[in-house]
Amino acid sequence: MRGREFDAVVLGAGPPGEVCAGRLAERGLEVAIVEPRLVGGECSFYACMPSKALLRPIELTHESHRVPGVTVGELDAHAVLERRDQVIGNLDDSGQVPWLEDRGIVLVRARGRLDGERRVRAGDDVLVARRAVVVATGSTPLVPPIPGLAEARPWTNIEATTSREVPGRLVILGGGVVGVEMAQAWSALGSGVTLVHRGERLIEREEPFASEHVAQGLREAGVEIRLGTSAAKVERGDEITIELDDGTTVVGDEVLAAFGRRPTTDEIGLETVGLEPGGHLRVDEGLRVPGFEWLYAIGDVNGRVLLTHMGKYQGRLAADAILGESVALRSDGVLSPSVIFTDPQVGSVGYTLAGAREAGLEVRAVDVDTGGNAGGSFVGRGAAGTSRLVVDERAGVVVGATFTGPEIQEALHAATIAVVGKVPLDDLWHAVPSFPTRSELWLKLLEAYGL
Amino acid sequence: MRGREFDAVVLGAGPPGEVCAGRLAERGLEVAIVEPRLVGGECSFYACMPSKALLRPIELTHESHRVPGVTVGELDAHAVLERRDQVIGNLDDSGQVPWLEDRGIVLVRARGRLDGERRVRAGDDVLVARRAVVVATGSTPLVPPIPGLAEARPWTNIEATTSREVPGRLVILGGGVVGVEMAQAWSALGSGVTLVHRGERLIEREEPFASEHVAQGLREAGVEIRLGTSAAKVERGDEITIELDDGTTVVGDEVLAAFGRRPTTDEIGLETVGLEPGGHLRVDEGLRVPGFEWLYAIGDVNGRVLLTHMGKYQGRLAADAILGESVALRSDGVLSPSVIFTDPQVGSVGYTLAGAREAGLEVRAVDVDTGGNAGGSFVGRGAAGTSRLVVDERAGVVVGATFTGPEIQEALHAATIAVVGKVPLDDLWHAVPSFPTRSELWLKLLEAYGL
Repeated sequence: MRGREFDAVVLGAGPPGEVCAGRLAERGLEVAIVEPRLVGGECSFYACMPSKALLRPIELTHESHRVPGVTVGELDAHAVLERRDQVIGNLDDSGQVPWLEDRGIVLVRARGRLDGERRVRAGDDVLVARRAVVVATGSTPLVPPIPGLAEARPWTNIEATTSREVPGRLVILGGGVVGVEMAQAWSALGSGVTLVHRGERLIEREEPFASEHVAQGLREAGVEIRLGTSAAKVERGDEITIELDDGTTVVGDEVLAAFGRRPTTDEIGLETVGLEPGGHLRVDEGLRVPGFEWLYAIGDVNGRVLLTHMGKYQGRLAADAILGESVALRSDGVLSPSVIFTDPQVGSVGYTLAGAREAGLEVRAVDVDTGGNAGGSFVGRGAAGTSRLVVDERAGVVVGATFTGPEIQEALHAATIAVVGKVPLDDLWHAVPSFPTRSELWLKLLEAYGL
Repeated sequence: MRGREFDAVVLGAGPPGEVCAGRLAERGLEVAIVEPRLVGGECSFYACMPSKALLRPIELTHESHRVPGVTVGELDAHAVLERRDQVIGNLDDSGQVPWLEDRGIVLVRARGRLDGERRVRAGDDVLVARRAVVVATGSTPLVPPIPGLAEARPWTNIEATTSREVPGRLVILGGGVVGVEMAQAWSALGSGVTLVHRGERLIEREEPFASEHVAQGLREAGVEIRLGTSAAKVERGDEITIELDDGTTVVGDEVLAAFGRRPTTDEIGLETVGLEPGGHLRVDEGLRVPGFEWLYAIGDVNGRVLLTHMGKYQGRLAADAILGESVALRSDGVLSPSVIFTDPQVGSVGYTLAGAREAGLEVRAVDVDTGGNAGGSFVGRGAAGTSRLVVDERAGVVVGATFTGPEIQEALHAATIAVVGKVPLDDLWHAVPSFPTRSELWLKLLEAYGL
């Protein structure tokens, strides 16, 4: 069977696939994108976007309470959920499709699978790629084999971000980013939330102080946190009963499985080109699957870093590679910038102090209060947080930064530029933060370092 | 008469003087600081701090209205004014003095004047400086010789930031930063505000689109703006009547003279060392008065740039120079970063497009909507604004940036690092903004440039 030919075929229309396809098409290539579900992917409908729609009014309500003169009442949960529904277009992707059409990208609404070299079978279609196939099939929630868990029909990120009902009691299993953000959201919307986490601290990839600050914020919001334990058995009757391995029991009306993600590589035909299905589709620094000159993998599916913006970045680089440029990731893995939208928020990029030391760098960390300057006083009284720079003493550059505090999401990019651009400390010292903004925390940090 | 000896004597305890004295004292020097009025200066009591205390709740109320789910009412003007009074410590500087004491700095509460080389007379005291005298006497409001203006007892920045009464009608003369910020503040607090500006657009040092956006924001807030005209005659009776040079008349209960500042050099003894009083005390790139190895001038008084953070920066550099380091300003004048706290705000650093061209640079500007990305949608629906980068095409670096929009104050520092650090475009391209934050405007800008 002879298929339709394109320059590139992209499997998966989440943000990484969309960005890659868009960049290729804008530069004149013929591109097909294959997507069996919603164009825009998990991020647009079941992750980043709805979660931020839930979290932003909560944060802003807290902020308004801290600033005298602003007259603010209780959060209106109904309005929040309604706005969330608008943000996700009521789970209709027709708002996303024109972006593809404008670029002349052919959308094939079908499940796509590799069918030998440079060939993709998409429903009844066969698509042949002259230059490249880009796998961007993303990931799906991991539901571990805890007895009774699957049978209890747990929430995953999908239900946690799109539910129209506020459960009376919500038990969250897993204290990573999804766990802490959803604990913040649903407790504010009215649920009694219990957060169960196997580790000794929440969000373990972050600096220890970030874990503490988020835990404190959640506790103040009424969330019960159980650390160092995990679910041993789950049973759903009129309510859901969860036995923990420390012998205690928690009860809820819903349970959210927030254990992480597994790559969507089971049924995409990897075996037709001699690759193993089920695991991550590993790539080199140029996003290419080693040994396959025509095969790229971007986003969650390659397992390098599970963040939308990093998947999009990979999509841009992969497109440039397909267009003939020499590319290499300069931001990757745990060193990637990221923001956790709890209250306080956590923004981080590059190494943690411990991570830098493990990597053999000669580093020194300096910490200041995020709100401990004139600008901080206007973010609101009692708004706490810590800002840390991790400085490579030999190179004289910042290799890591972590900020906790309210509304730090827009402050992170300065650190991302400093870390990725390896901006010398002396240049940072002459980059004067404006008064009175909270960004004077840079000044305090550099002074604390000894500049 | 033999005086008390110090390593350095600083005239003026506004932020630049404080910072300079503090840095010298922390490094072991004996320092005296001479201040006849409030320690903390204009900025702490009559400018930046009270104005932001007035403006922040206004901005936050607007922001809360844009985000569904936040229940927000009218601004509580009484609470705003009360909080403003707290921020300025009810015009008592006892909160500021311990910072000096902790560093062993001797505070002399008197009017200080030079009394020949390395000597300062402060009341009955004579202070002798072994190493340096630092002039940081700041500036005072400029009240031009418009007939009747002085007699009408106009508000200056002092009354505009500290008034406990909300005038029924406020006429503001001058559409620079003070003019537009105070128009925003007092109109929100309940005054009917008329803003009269001689130029064809407000805040003329900024990009033209910034002038437009601020004017539009003020008009939406009910401010009447009269451009291209200025006051010809002022008369205070039961009300204040101001004849404009276009033949029209405006009437108010108070009038704010926001024409700019003049340096405070009249009565500081410059003539005792052969310098001319009254004008700016000009300095070289090392903050030293040319021809005087021992004399420095920092902050408004040297006329380079009238911004608190730049005065503080100059204070740090002057201290380092006095300590024997070789220093040079790397951020200065109109290229300095600054934020205007209107709604929308304006944040800018480096060249405007026109300014870069006048300077002979080969530049190209790219513009995007500040809120035109996923993160922007959470700042609030209908939150507008433009973001511009001015790129030096030969050098491949950003030489200017302007952002308008709500809450951009913490976003500016990324641009300041990029401009001052001359971070190559390719490094900026690999510095990935986090999703979903509004800082993805960087991505859009760089894509618009062609990356």
